[in-house]
Amino acid sequence: MTDTTMEPFVRNAWYIAAWPEELEDGFIARTIMNEPLIIFRDKDGKVAALEDRCCHRGAPLTHGTQIDTGIQCGYHGLVFDGTGACVEVPGQKKIPSDACVRSYPIVERQQIIWIWMGDAEKADENKIIDYPFHDQPEKWPHKKAMFQIKANYMMMMDNLMDLTHLGFVHAKTIGGNPSVHVNAAVTATPTENGCMLERWMMDGAPPPTYVKAVGFKGNIDRWHRFEYVAPSSVIQNTGAIDAGKGAKENQDQPGLHFQLLHHATPETETSFHYFWSAANGYRQDDPSATEQLYNESYPTFLEDKVIMEAQQERINLDPNRPLVHIPADTAMFIARKALRAMIDAEQSATREAAE
Amino acid sequence: MTDTTMEPFVRNAWYIAAWPEELEDGFIARTIMNEPLIIFRDKDGKVAALEDRCCHRGAPLTHGTQIDTGIQCGYHGLVFDGTGACVEVPGQKKIPSDACVRSYPIVERQQIIWIWMGDAEKADENKIIDYPFHDQPEKWPHKKAMFQIKANYMMMMDNLMDLTHLGFVHAKTIGGNPSVHVNAAVTATPTENGCMLERWMMDGAPPPTYVKAVGFKGNIDRWHRFEYVAPSSVIQNTGAIDAGKGAKENQDQPGLHFQLLHHATPETETSFHYFWSAANGYRQDDPSATEQLYNESYPTFLEDKVIMEAQQERINLDPNRPLVHIPADTAMFIARKALRAMIDAEQSATREAAE
Amino acid sequence: MTDTTMEPFVRNAWYIAAWPEELEDGFIARTIMNEPLIIFRDKDGKVAALEDRCCHRGAPLTHGTQIDTGIQCGYHGLVFDGTGACVEVPGQKKIPSDACVRSYPIVERQQIIWIWMGDAEKADENKIIDYPFHDQPEKWPHKKAMFQIKANYMMMMDNLMDLTHLGFVHAKTIGGNPSVHVNAAVTATPTENGCMLERWMMDGAPPPTYVKAVGFKGNIDRWHRFEYVAPSSVIQNTGAIDAGKGAKENQDQPGLHFQLLHHATPETETSFHYFWSAANGYRQDDPSATEQLYNESYPTFLEDKVIMEAQQERINLDPNRPLVHIPADTAMFIARKALRAMIDAEQSATREAAE
Repeated sequence: MTDTTMEPFVRNAWYIAAWPEELEDGFIARTIMNEPLIIFRDKDGKVAALEDRCCHRGAPLTHGTQIDTGIQCGYHGLVFDGTGACVEVPGQKKIPSDACVRSYPIVERQQIIWIWMGDAEKADENKIIDYPFHDQPEKWPHKKAMFQIKANYMMMMDNLMDLTHLGFVHAKTIGGNPSVHVNAAVTATPTENGCMLERWMMDGAPPPTYVKAVGFKGNIDRWHRFEYVAPSSVIQNTGAIDAGKGAKENQDQPGLHFQLLHHATPETETSFHYFWSAANGYRQDDPSATEQLYNESYPTFLEDKVIMEAQQERINLDPNRPLVHIPADTAMFIARKALRAMIDAEQSATREAAE
Repeated sequence: MTDTTMEPFVRNAWYIAAWPEELEDGFIARTIMNEPLIIFRDKDGKVAALEDRCCHRGAPLTHGTQIDTGIQCGYHGLVFDGTGACVEVPGQKKIPSDACVRSYPIVERQQIIWIWMGDAEKADENKIIDYPFHDQPEKWPHKKAMFQIKANYMMMMDNLMDLTHLGFVHAKTIGGNPSVHVNAAVTATPTENGCMLERWMMDGAPPPTYVKAVGFKGNIDRWHRFEYVAPSSVIQNTGAIDAGKGAKENQDQPGLHFQLLHHATPETETSFHYFWSAANGYRQDDPSATEQLYNESYPTFLEDKVIMEAQQERINLDPNRPLVHIPADTAMFIARKALRAMIDAEQSATREAAE
Repeated sequence: MTDTTMEPFVRNAWYIAAWPEELEDGFIARTIMNEPLIIFRDKDGKVAALEDRCCHRGAPLTHGTQIDTGIQCGYHGLVFDGTGACVEVPGQKKIPSDACVRSYPIVERQQIIWIWMGDAEKADENKIIDYPFHDQPEKWPHKKAMFQIKANYMMMMDNLMDLTHLGFVHAKTIGGNPSVHVNAAVTATPTENGCMLERWMMDGAPPPTYVKAVGFKGNIDRWHRFEYVAPSSVIQNTGAIDAGKGAKENQDQPGLHFQLLHHATPETETSFHYFWSAANGYRQDDPSATEQLYNESYPTFLEDKVIMEAQQERINLDPNRPLVHIPADTAMFIARKALRAMIDAEQSATREAAE
């Protein structure tokens, strides 16, 4: 059982590198797993990620310029295409054979830009999680954001796997009465590569925001489903329908439906990029419904940022100091176990390759 | 003879943790000897100091809330009382046996909150220095402050044990003519656990501030008494009475009287909390006399902060580099020797306990 | 061949410590090769550089005051003269024999203050580079500046030894068309202790700034001469005269003439003080010509600062990681080789002295 918060990175996995919207005004600089990158869309529309360091004198490529053939270094003008190959050295016909920068496998799918930080030969697109909601604007209109958080990325996963935090961290936003969250019946079930955390609250009065969103008139049956997929995604489905209509058997009925994607891409051991996307499965033809969901989520997730950053400051004082377990940690431990298995597999594969 | 500025901490000793006034608006966060603490007054009025780290997931308790039963963590809601015991885990009846945080012995006495950072079993209240002046508002009205200073705590003690600094560090405030301070007759005498530094200036003209304070009309006899009590207190008594009235034999005559407490509580090896309290033993029924003494002390002590922080920056470059001794260092060396004895005793007790 | 950017310091060499103008308002604090210094002009007009740390309690002397006899420490009033000797301890007649601070050889010549950071016995004034231009205001009026740059000092030398950067780093200021700089004929020739980089552009249209400066009416012959002198000076001579007048044989004809001194004094391994001086060899009786040259150089050299600081950030991630060579590096490698020889000579002399 894992009882400290920090784990080594899983490199052979897909992480979100950026939202496509971030590239609309040109390339961006982003550090992932301590590696500074330049991420850009080339003139043919293909996204590329290169090491943000010119091989000539070490200048960051993000101080350069994007031209038709690639990224031109802002120091002496070398140009690199999306594969990392040097395609021009100003004033020369011959390009040195060792002139190139590292490029990283990138897949753009379902309005998400995924990156593979490990062994490029193992980059299997089939391992990318499926998130079809972004491609259904008529059913799931959505809005995205990204926060920089100064904490180990797994603290975000821990956070999402223990909903008892809602009444304390989010007391001023969505929290409401802490005992509602603490006493709700939850089940935590291991999945093939993660954990499904499910919470049902039957036949209760709807929160005011739910009434405002979809106009409930009587009691409702509510659920949250948080699926952790190792190493660093949580797919959240939240919903509510009128009580007594068989919600447990069929959630696909008119009512309130949210679909959230939470993803934590490690920047360093103690910081990550928190990508989140919120889709509303109701009043889909009313843009203000999407805005409202986004505007409620934004300050709520900033509260998580504050507590996680404070937590990391303490962890830093003694990262290996043990923590104390409580029953509410169950889903977190299932999730951590799935991560651990992934780390162990990667490390034993590395050892075998070295032998 | 000690000739470098940095020494290990003395842990088995009482330090000022806070002024009671600091707790009036609720708990405070304070780091002492590298340990982050939460200090609060419980609902029964008793002051407590706990490690500022929840044992569950490491979040700082100072991000939580004080409730009737103690401090409630702001992440998942665990509650700790003033002894550090966990008294509530939301949603559970059974509290894990290992759920607790470290608490520190606290004594509140004479309007000072004292803390013991070492072995709790050795925390003997009789070792707390006696400072009765805070309890005599009719004779010694006073006002307190605390500064954060980025220097080793002993630099404050060194500072107070060598009054030749007055004419240079405080040239713009209380310093006046440097030669007055440099040439005054001083005696430095070892005490049981420190050093008494005493300076007399007989039959001289009173400084303008003295005249303003108590209306001297002729020459005066003046004295400063600075008693260092290891590890980190200096009790200062300053006074002046009309010349020729036998000041040396009896200081308890009408005139000018200050009583100051200086205390340096280590925050880290290179920073401390400087607690000071200034009491006026004249015009006690006039609050402006207390204000005036405080308002003159405040910028003066900030000048000490500036020079000590600059000094520490240089010391940091090579902490073990020797310093050069001059005769004015005498009191400082007596004080350092008392501290050294305290450190040696603590270290040999620790070694014996380990054998 | 050197292919990383960081090298050990050469200590036995002359570096620019300050421009004389910087001392007009009193002493300055400056760190050179990690050593904090106080630099001042004494009452006899002689410049001195002392370690910025009082030998008594370690306070920085730059927190003190300059008096007739030297620098008086702002803590307890010790006074040090320009040789570093303590000449006064307040209140004492006898000065401790070990009371002194390190002083550094200083030579003020040609309006430059030179310092020697190594073994004082080896400080040979004949090794100071000759820069007569500062002493000829009628022929070479000039103006000086100093920038703090957060990069290893050799990056400045590298920068000046590869002029292909002009079209990229300075695209918005003096750069113009990159291919002009990239395709110009350059020669790089080893000198006794450095490298001469020379570039000629014959019979071309003058840039607008040249026309504005001296009113060329037809084509011109232009040249740049950059002489690196190890360890950290570059003497630049730039000029242009009417085409067809034999510029290569005789540059001393009416036309456009600049004389620049570039000097990088290491502050730490990853920062330096960039001293530069720009002199105009035309319209010498018009102060606006000097101002214009200075005002064009200033933002241009700030562009170099930006790219070098970004480069250093990347280098810091892995200082020993190899770089890739291109033909434009030729002059840089000659310069680096001269530096390497100087380092090797210093290190072998040190080893011999130790045996």
